[in-house]
Amino acid sequence: MTDAATLLDFDTLKGRIEAIFARAGLAPLHAAALARVIAAGERDGAKSHGLYRIEGCLRTLAAGKVSPDAVPELLDDGSAVIRVLAGGAFSPAAFELGAPLLAERARAQGLAALVINDCVHFSALWPEVEALAAEGLAALALCPSYATVAPAGGTRPLLGTNPFAFAWPRPGGTPYVFDFATSVAARGEIELHRRAGRPLPAGWAIDAQGAATTDPAEALAGAMLPFGGHKGSAISTMVELLAGAMIGDLTSRGALDALGTTTLAPRHGELILAFSPERFAADRPGDPFAAAETLFEAILGQGARLPSQRRFGARETSLRQGIALSAEETALLGRLEAEGA
Amino acid sequence: MTDAATLLDFDTLKGRIEAIFARAGLAPLHAAALARVIAAGERDGAKSHGLYRIEGCLRTLAAGKVSPDAVPELLDDGSAVIRVLAGGAFSPAAFELGAPLLAERARAQGLAALVINDCVHFSALWPEVEALAAEGLAALALCPSYATVAPAGGTRPLLGTNPFAFAWPRPGGTPYVFDFATSVAARGEIELHRRAGRPLPAGWAIDAQGAATTDPAEALAGAMLPFGGHKGSAISTMVELLAGAMIGDLTSRGALDALGTTTLAPRHGELILAFSPERFAADRPGDPFAAAETLFEAILGQGARLPSQRRFGARETSLRQGIALSAEETALLGRLEAEGA
Repeated sequence: MTDAATLLDFDTLKGRIEAIFARAGLAPLHAAALARVIAAGERDGAKSHGLYRIEGCLRTLAAGKVSPDAVPELLDDGSAVIRVLAGGAFSPAAFELGAPLLAERARAQGLAALVINDCVHFSALWPEVEALAAEGLAALALCPSYATVAPAGGTRPLLGTNPFAFAWPRPGGTPYVFDFATSVAARGEIELHRRAGRPLPAGWAIDAQGAATTDPAEALAGAMLPFGGHKGSAISTMVELLAGAMIGDLTSRGALDALGTTTLAPRHGELILAFSPERFAADRPGDPFAAAETLFEAILGQGARLPSQRRFGARETSLRQGIALSAEETALLGRLEAEGA
Repeated sequence: MTDAATLLDFDTLKGRIEAIFARAGLAPLHAAALARVIAAGERDGAKSHGLYRIEGCLRTLAAGKVSPDAVPELLDDGSAVIRVLAGGAFSPAAFELGAPLLAERARAQGLAALVINDCVHFSALWPEVEALAAEGLAALALCPSYATVAPAGGTRPLLGTNPFAFAWPRPGGTPYVFDFATSVAARGEIELHRRAGRPLPAGWAIDAQGAATTDPAEALAGAMLPFGGHKGSAISTMVELLAGAMIGDLTSRGALDALGTTTLAPRHGELILAFSPERFAADRPGDPFAAAETLFEAILGQGARLPSQRRFGARETSLRQGIALSAEETALLGRLEAEGA
């Protein structure tokens, strides 16, 4: 971190981000919720969901594609499905509203779902599954994005990068968490190759004619490919079905058609499932958390990694010494503050 | 089908398989349930789960590793989690017992889970998710198997081939269904390469020292690899957690340790989730089933396939002309009938 110009504690960074959003016209509820997830990304070294996201959110706001002040509405019919209508606002406040009842319902029923409808989405899913893991629950979160990925065997963008996130609570430590795009690579990675003038690895993308390409510009004009061939393509399709069609919200195709661009954050829905291991394992021999630890130890014991370990390492460093911003990041933050002032 | 020696209708084939199991000592409940799934595999041209499976089941029975007559027990506390204790018997009868209540609960609660504990497992998962799709529900089914797959970055068998199956109901037609191993390839495919003296494709397996290999014999002595690198490995780990640790049953490592061999069917648990799209989409604009059809049409419209299309094609042929058995398969069936007589 030789270029670290600034060390900020979490609350200071969050407060500065929150002020930027508030000055841009976001209601306090949303400014605070966005600042929490963006500061968390920066804290964890997850730069693609850190400060870098602020401008995209502001652009979406300036374009009138997100409600600055819709108050999320919680609908609960007492079933295992809880719903929050986000009213066209960003998703984080909607999640924060629904999460406590989701956790309560999962503990009561064994499992429960939170549907978020009509939200504008830009954030990683790990803050959400981690929040549920902190309540002792396993959690799965899915959402479409916008059509930039061709199905396996196809030729044109149809599926989204459709993230798939999961967390399992680990008593006394950070949870087991993964959160990945169901495309081979994120769109941002292809853009980075283009800027660097580097060819893409084979299998990442196809061009506008549907032929395999390693040219980043052709890939951006064509389509990305799902990870894992037809299996990843099937999982991505499942995300469209469960977190798009099933919840009465847009698929990635519908979201792109409605927005008309991939430069703003898309509006669609999200599905989060929460499971109570204590309920699922009730009256069974053994402890589900101990069994999981045995599995994790065996993974680590053969030299493999657990997902998110790098992110948790960065978090530990940030919590100890402060969140390190590079000179460039410090300048970005200052510029955003000056623009809004 | 030039070597087709026999054409049998479904009930005839099922009856002959059922008789083989009954003569081998399986209680009528289990003989019938096994015959249904094996005849369905043969009907669908899913040869790896067809007649070929009979001998493995009989071997597991002869080894005393499956209860021939345990009566599955349904436990229902009124929550969203229904449980069937299989008592060490094969899983299909346990699923059949729990499925109607799972469907009823999913319709009432929006989603529900069926846990099957202490079952011996050899069957594909598509018969189960398809049965729920026939009830108008989306369904997800997961189970561990036994440790034959190394985690990404690892060197030794730990995970199972851990199948992951999903179905979405399509009004008036066969459902959208996928059912795949979370390993790159099935163990049987590696065995087929060994017998044919053909090298494996790169990326399928590692040898006993953890080094990449294309030698099938070395792969069988080493470990298979997950599909899709660290993403597939994470999904496979999730299967171990949700359908092993969480439900108070064995992981793939535990199942192999308990059984001591991969030549018999493993005993562990299974997790099936059922979702009611009608409940999830209630009071939302649009029809979830119509939105899904738009997605499927777009996939097919660009020349990509839907999963299971080949299997449904084989099913259609079988239902029209009868299930075609090759001379070899006819001989196998005859031999199994003679041995049991």
